[in-house]
Amino acid sequence: MDENNLRHLLDRVAGGKLTVADALRELRWLPYADLGFAKVDHHRALRTGIGEMIYCASKTPAQTREIARALIEGSSGPILATKATEAHAKAIEQVAPGMTWHEIAGLVVVRPAPRSSQPARILVITAGTSDIPVAEEAAVTVEALGHDAERLYDVGAAGIHRLTGARDLFRTASITVVCAGMDGILPTIVAGMVGGPVVAVPTSVGYGAGAGGITPLLTMLNACAPGVAVVNIDNGFGAAILACLIVRPRHIEAD
Amino acid sequence: MDENNLRHLLDRVAGGKLTVADALRELRWLPYADLGFAKVDHHRALRTGIGEMIYCASKTPAQTREIARALIEGSSGPILATKATEAHAKAIEQVAPGMTWHEIAGLVVVRPAPRSSQPARILVITAGTSDIPVAEEAAVTVEALGHDAERLYDVGAAGIHRLTGARDLFRTASITVVCAGMDGILPTIVAGMVGGPVVAVPTSVGYGAGAGGITPLLTMLNACAPGVAVVNIDNGFGAAILACLIVRPRHIEAD
Amino acid sequence: MDENNLRHLLDRVAGGKLTVADALRELRWLPYADLGFAKVDHHRALRTGIGEMIYCASKTPAQTREIARALIEGSSGPILATKATEAHAKAIEQVAPGMTWHEIAGLVVVRPAPRSSQPARILVITAGTSDIPVAEEAAVTVEALGHDAERLYDVGAAGIHRLTGARDLFRTASITVVCAGMDGILPTIVAGMVGGPVVAVPTSVGYGAGAGGITPLLTMLNACAPGVAVVNIDNGFGAAILACLIVRPRHIEAD
Amino acid sequence: MDENNLRHLLDRVAGGKLTVADALRELRWLPYADLGFAKVDHHRALRTGIGEMIYCASKTPAQTREIARALIEGSSGPILATKATEAHAKAIEQVAPGMTWHEIAGLVVVRPAPRSSQPARILVITAGTSDIPVAEEAAVTVEALGHDAERLYDVGAAGIHRLTGARDLFRTASITVVCAGMDGILPTIVAGMVGGPVVAVPTSVGYGAGAGGITPLLTMLNACAPGVAVVNIDNGFGAAILACLIVRPRHIEAD
Amino acid sequence: MDENNLRHLLDRVAGGKLTVADALRELRWLPYADLGFAKVDHHRALRTGIGEMIYCASKTPAQTREIARALIEGSSGPILATKATEAHAKAIEQVAPGMTWHEIAGLVVVRPAPRSSQPARILVITAGTSDIPVAEEAAVTVEALGHDAERLYDVGAAGIHRLTGARDLFRTASITVVCAGMDGILPTIVAGMVGGPVVAVPTSVGYGAGAGGITPLLTMLNACAPGVAVVNIDNGFGAAILACLIVRPRHIEAD
Amino acid sequence: MDENNLRHLLDRVAGGKLTVADALRELRWLPYADLGFAKVDHHRALRTGIGEMIYCASKTPAQTREIARALIEGSSGPILATKATEAHAKAIEQVAPGMTWHEIAGLVVVRPAPRSSQPARILVITAGTSDIPVAEEAAVTVEALGHDAERLYDVGAAGIHRLTGARDLFRTASITVVCAGMDGILPTIVAGMVGGPVVAVPTSVGYGAGAGGITPLLTMLNACAPGVAVVNIDNGFGAAILACLIVRPRHIEAD
Amino acid sequence: MDENNLRHLLDRVAGGKLTVADALRELRWLPYADLGFAKVDHHRALRTGIGEMIYCASKTPAQTREIARALIEGSSGPILATKATEAHAKAIEQVAPGMTWHEIAGLVVVRPAPRSSQPARILVITAGTSDIPVAEEAAVTVEALGHDAERLYDVGAAGIHRLTGARDLFRTASITVVCAGMDGILPTIVAGMVGGPVVAVPTSVGYGAGAGGITPLLTMLNACAPGVAVVNIDNGFGAAILACLIVRPRHIEAD
Amino acid sequence: MDENNLRHLLDRVAGGKLTVADALRELRWLPYADLGFAKVDHHRALRTGIGEMIYCASKTPAQTREIARALIEGSSGPILATKATEAHAKAIEQVAPGMTWHEIAGLVVVRPAPRSSQPARILVITAGTSDIPVAEEAAVTVEALGHDAERLYDVGAAGIHRLTGARDLFRTASITVVCAGMDGILPTIVAGMVGGPVVAVPTSVGYGAGAGGITPLLTMLNACAPGVAVVNIDNGFGAAILACLIVRPRHIEAD
Repeated sequence: MDENNLRHLLDRVAGGKLTVADALRELRWLPYADLGFAKVDHHRALRTGIGEMIYCASKTPAQTREIARALIEGSSGPILATKATEAHAKAIEQVAPGMTWHEIAGLVVVRPAPRSSQPARILVITAGTSDIPVAEEAAVTVEALGHDAERLYDVGAAGIHRLTGARDLFRTASITVVCAGMDGILPTIVAGMVGGPVVAVPTSVGYGAGAGGITPLLTMLNACAPGVAVVNIDNGFGAAILACLIVRPRHIEAD
Repeated sequence: MDENNLRHLLDRVAGGKLTVADALRELRWLPYADLGFAKVDHHRALRTGIGEMIYCASKTPAQTREIARALIEGSSGPILATKATEAHAKAIEQVAPGMTWHEIAGLVVVRPAPRSSQPARILVITAGTSDIPVAEEAAVTVEALGHDAERLYDVGAAGIHRLTGARDLFRTASITVVCAGMDGILPTIVAGMVGGPVVAVPTSVGYGAGAGGITPLLTMLNACAPGVAVVNIDNGFGAAILACLIVRPRHIEAD
Repeated sequence: MDENNLRHLLDRVAGGKLTVADALRELRWLPYADLGFAKVDHHRALRTGIGEMIYCASKTPAQTREIARALIEGSSGPILATKATEAHAKAIEQVAPGMTWHEIAGLVVVRPAPRSSQPARILVITAGTSDIPVAEEAAVTVEALGHDAERLYDVGAAGIHRLTGARDLFRTASITVVCAGMDGILPTIVAGMVGGPVVAVPTSVGYGAGAGGITPLLTMLNACAPGVAVVNIDNGFGAAILACLIVRPRHIEAD
Repeated sequence: MDENNLRHLLDRVAGGKLTVADALRELRWLPYADLGFAKVDHHRALRTGIGEMIYCASKTPAQTREIARALIEGSSGPILATKATEAHAKAIEQVAPGMTWHEIAGLVVVRPAPRSSQPARILVITAGTSDIPVAEEAAVTVEALGHDAERLYDVGAAGIHRLTGARDLFRTASITVVCAGMDGILPTIVAGMVGGPVVAVPTSVGYGAGAGGITPLLTMLNACAPGVAVVNIDNGFGAAILACLIVRPRHIEAD
Repeated sequence: MDENNLRHLLDRVAGGKLTVADALRELRWLPYADLGFAKVDHHRALRTGIGEMIYCASKTPAQTREIARALIEGSSGPILATKATEAHAKAIEQVAPGMTWHEIAGLVVVRPAPRSSQPARILVITAGTSDIPVAEEAAVTVEALGHDAERLYDVGAAGIHRLTGARDLFRTASITVVCAGMDGILPTIVAGMVGGPVVAVPTSVGYGAGAGGITPLLTMLNACAPGVAVVNIDNGFGAAILACLIVRPRHIEAD
Repeated sequence: MDENNLRHLLDRVAGGKLTVADALRELRWLPYADLGFAKVDHHRALRTGIGEMIYCASKTPAQTREIARALIEGSSGPILATKATEAHAKAIEQVAPGMTWHEIAGLVVVRPAPRSSQPARILVITAGTSDIPVAEEAAVTVEALGHDAERLYDVGAAGIHRLTGARDLFRTASITVVCAGMDGILPTIVAGMVGGPVVAVPTSVGYGAGAGGITPLLTMLNACAPGVAVVNIDNGFGAAILACLIVRPRHIEAD
Repeated sequence: MDENNLRHLLDRVAGGKLTVADALRELRWLPYADLGFAKVDHHRALRTGIGEMIYCASKTPAQTREIARALIEGSSGPILATKATEAHAKAIEQVAPGMTWHEIAGLVVVRPAPRSSQPARILVITAGTSDIPVAEEAAVTVEALGHDAERLYDVGAAGIHRLTGARDLFRTASITVVCAGMDGILPTIVAGMVGGPVVAVPTSVGYGAGAGGITPLLTMLNACAPGVAVVNIDNGFGAAILACLIVRPRHIEAD
Repeated sequence: MDENNLRHLLDRVAGGKLTVADALRELRWLPYADLGFAKVDHHRALRTGIGEMIYCASKTPAQTREIARALIEGSSGPILATKATEAHAKAIEQVAPGMTWHEIAGLVVVRPAPRSSQPARILVITAGTSDIPVAEEAAVTVEALGHDAERLYDVGAAGIHRLTGARDLFRTASITVVCAGMDGILPTIVAGMVGGPVVAVPTSVGYGAGAGGITPLLTMLNACAPGVAVVNIDNGFGAAILACLIVRPRHIEAD
């Protein structure tokens, strides 16, 4: 039941076509049902342009295809599929011929958002080459949501001099997403340089003690530099969403 | 060496009072020294009004007093002391008679920032009464940095109906900080309601498996609702800084 | 907003005193607010007699007193306070003179439920003497909710022969709660004997590897005997609630 | 030695054909042997209709076939094989031509129970599509034991609106089993809605910190909503057994 | 029900004073009740002289006193109380005036075993001085069970030369118990020297990574030298029991 | 340098053919070199018949072949290769044509010990069918060292009645090795039955929380029944060696 | 911006061709940019001969080829590629025909350093055959940096007698690197023998509790023998670099 | 048995006063006994000047006093007591009146080494004020072993500009020890600056996820900058010993 249905119900009460008792019975399940979380999510999707996401890992290609079909039919916003293999991409293509398959990012853009009227420039940085798949998941998501992604890859350790070229990027970027594995200290360094919030994505790159992303996750959570927002290991998609929500103009109602 | 010193050095080079060779020798350590991280931090402090923080845990009261003394003399921005006991507060008071001691927050506001010209309304929520100390650390920090903190405590589990009263708070708040222990699901629920970024603070409230904040930390990192930015367990201060940085107007330079 | 308010609103719509548009605006926050979770909880409390619980750990005595005061005034069902020290008990007594303080259980029964019309006999078993505080938390909770608790303590290891006396208890009990620390195998053994669901409570009794309740928690989760329902470590209260919900007659509506 | 053997022995004692001394010698091993755990299990199987289970993981197909053969010959109750691959299924089919192979559930129903005279309606819910294999293991087990399973899949996150359709299901279901990975908060939400015991199954769906089911397991153990019974990660079979035992009519003997 | 009761029952069956049906009803609970585990334990206690143990940690002094009283009255074998504080000792003394309180071992010998007719010499070694409490728990237990304990303390790291004096001890000892914290490598070294089984007790001595006994526990479990039997961290009592059982002459019945 | 070399050196000193100074120089490295650990190991091998073991995991077949060749040439005792794949077995066969390849145990008996003059009967028990590979590693090792292994498999959970048949086995066995995964409680039960030391081997069988053998390892370390000696997860070989060392007659020298 | 650029800038200031204001603007980004970390690294590489490393794990062969190409063109020092498969090696060979592929070490020496004028002898030891890949990574790195690597493999457990042959190696080696898995005690033993710093490399060899290198890592961190420097699990490359830096003559400037 | 005893034995063999057989018997235990590890340690102590250490944690003051007494009498080298409380210090003072008690370091210098003829300058750095106790343990140990310790404290986060003053310290220091808690990135930064080996000491300073030193330990082990040697958490003493061993001139014997 959405707002239209609710209006219709009220109209019928107002018009005497529905008794208050019957309306009450109808509304009794409202709190956690017909107007429930789903609608909230739906509203949020419309307001923020975040759209819908299909998490492909541990789903069969056929399942992702059917979910994509349902989403395409049921909504008009952007639709993405993450952690997608080529098989997932091909299955989705059957119901979304215009989709785009980003192999490195493991991302299928089923239906992108239109370009934002106020596109933000979101800087996506990686410490190493191995962190690129996670960063690409973030960058392609940013683009699919109508913003601009600036990529600055492999600036940790041996390549930190490449941050030099980031001078202009830092000056013109709305927010920075930093993907790092190993010791995970790059977000701390970048946070010290940009002076603003940094979305930090620990990646599962590395080996030995604290491998699988635990070390960079802990380093980022314990970052001495303030302003580091941490998301889950390898969660480039979530980092992109968070960044887009942060840069989104906040239309705060006056009291 | 700060910008004035650097300008002075260049003046002397321009005026022929310093040879290029001597200037070079002087500048050789620049990258990681005289104009190093400290200055970056200093600049950021001035630009953002974040100021300086003394982490009191595992410091003696005398140590915190001396650090406070040095910060008071060395800077003009806001100064806070976190995880402070009463003994820390009393020691700091010796060098900062006007300080304010927030017992529940364990926070000493040595010198607050002036009220922001564009004060944000930052909503601080807790799941339970036991999460209040962490939330107060966040709320008092927000206030000490010149913004407004709206408190909405104990809205998890048995008290989630109190979110009702949050309708206006949500509408008028710039950003929301959610502190929760136990199963840590409140940030996910709030993120579904506010449609914007939520700063999630796991607290060490709870017992049994995954106690000490591990369960809410993991729940928040794995939150199915997008837009959840996680900070370290019990890190109310860090959450406040992150929130202030997110709401700070971004003066992005044009290309 | 509860059902009465909702009925009043509909009455005003039916009576033409409220426009559909205004009613819609009023109802817009319904899904997750006025008729939200809180009401669900409230309804459940009334239907099931589970009532309200104050978790005292990491709350000040004054806080627990004020929460107790609010609950006493705001509801008519049973009220309990768990993990309560004597200081908590005394503070609560100020607003609930008739409360009962169960020292070993760390439980304050602020207001018990009336005896159930269909009281169940719930058997509470411990492996050792050290598990008794957790078991008492369960047993006293059972009693405070209007049922009968049969205690059978210290039947693990050296005392398992005391299960002999349990023959009649097993025959007449509705359900069994088993509290065990150390290696935590007692629920598996009891599940093999009673042939019904067993609520297993790992306790933090023990030392060395996997201490703090981790070993019995894992043993119970991996129990080879079917029918073991696990709750959190030391969570005697939760076990009692679960047991009471399981034995509660289910009034399932016909299709 | 079963009851018949024991009766025969007593008959011979009563008839003077066996001396008390010889009978004693025969009975000396009774406590932990002839009338031991196995018989208990056997009795329980008969009383509860739970039957026998073959855990196929880390067994060869040939081993599962032989175990199935022995169970078929040795008992008359229901027999299931869990975590079964197609190879296991084919091997079992050699000795049980009428078996049913449920691919998604990884379950072979070697011999189902007859439909219960008082069949319960057990509602099986998943948060996501990826949790379906675990849920199917639960649902098929429920059906194989003579009850009805109602499936309500993919109601977490983006699809929680589908809980709307559950209104009737909740009203008519005896008990609910909830399977969830990721942040694992669905059982808490459902427990708040159904007001009864919920069997919570953490699944190994998810990635990053606390992956492999640890995060949902911890969330469920720390659930703020009362009445959540937790079983092991991915243990759909165990959840089904527990649910069937809970809904089974308890024939409690009068004192 | 013990053997006498069973004999009496059979006598009555033989004498026609008890019908087979009534005897059967009486015997129905035998498997897991009257002749159950407890009797097994009792028999084992008599055969092996291991006796009864009271685990004092998390028990009140009054509880330990009552348990001691019951054990003193109910058995004739040795009785020990482990992890006992002075308060426990004093409480036990009220019912066992002749008890001995071993402060360093945290052990109360309520009633020792008589000296064994074939006393074994059990060598108890520690790596450091800090491991002595655990070692004393082992050594005093050995003595309380009628055997001889030879102590060789502080032979790890800086003092390994003291193993020299162990030459005769090794030659004449039946078995060796080695207590070590820190890196826990002493059992491996000793196993290489004595060529026989070594009971290894990890202690919680140490700090930093893997503290609390985890490091020595893992080292001992992964010991490259064969013949290392590991018990729980700080479990000197368990090590002593294991050692006594190993050296106990095995009266194996011929086929 | 072995004893013969040492004797030769002393002979030369005694005969005046070697100066004390030269002998001292020769002996200077003795403590940790020529007569070092290796010899100790060698002596132990001869005395105990334990022999040599090749750990094949993470070795190439060629490496295992060369190690086998060296051991065959360098010693006369028994030689085994554990965790061996068929490729390892075939490689070893090239240098040891008479070797035996035990597929389930993953064990190559390169050269067995002769049958012991006092062969012990060592009982090897598993909780489930899935634990058999670990148990076979233990049993085949026992046999390769000249003792008798009695196998009693699949006696946990559904099959514990098969312990009945163990009555004679228990009576005539020297020691018992118990392999169990899942909840790992079988060693505790067996220890209660046999009244002697039990070598407990946690296996990596199981799934969910505490999988990979952690749950049974912790259960066994925290076993409430005394006399449980724990070895590493899946370490059937180590359990067999420990059992053989325990049953080996101890020739203790008189003082 | 490097020193030449900086000199040029100062020259222009000195020559009046650049205003101080413009120079300041140019220099503003200096601290963390143009003369930043990268240059530091570059300088260090030149001074120490450590060179550049490509970490191949989780990089595609094509990526490693391109990185190698860039490094070859951009520097003149030694270049190595670690954790390299044959595919990585072949890809690198396309841009570095003279490279050497060390299969066991998983190491590609793209361009070795010239032999050091003061080559150190670095002793690389392994406990077992399975540790050799890690040791080879260390040894080949040592050689590629212009020093000599002495290999002493498989000296743990059964082969510790081979340390005898190490007498001369120990006497003539500058430093020792010890690679060990399982219980990881070899570095402690070697540290006791060589009396100098030992670089300890835990390897992921082993199984069961604390597998994957956790046990040897913890053992080495808790080593009772002083002078043990620990690097990450399986990090043979890092151990070699650390050893080379330790033996490098320190040209300490006088005050 | 030391070298003198050995020489005496050989003299008697040479002089015909001891038969070869008797000498052999005497020498039989040599490898792991009379000339065993202890002597090795003793030799190393003399050669390296590292001396003896008493680890006070979990020792009584009386125990530390007696150990100190024995060490004072038995050796002539330096003696230190670590993790010492004031009570330990006072007890040791009874047998070592000239001892020095360093309260912050928790260190008693029972007998210092004489100043080295080639004293090294060892730089000890901390990230924060809270890390100072660990750093002082390192610095005082360095001094007690005859070298010079330069302290540079509180240079992480807000104070990294103080590294400026380290320019001369870095130029003149032989090696650097870096103590850091929280995110533990300082050693990586310092390693990038000094271009030499850095001894990294994780401290237990910090809170939340990965507290107790786990986060800095993991960060240091995964440090992307080469040349970081890690010791155990809070092990300032071990870091000092390692640093002293690294800077000690290596007298490598020619081949």
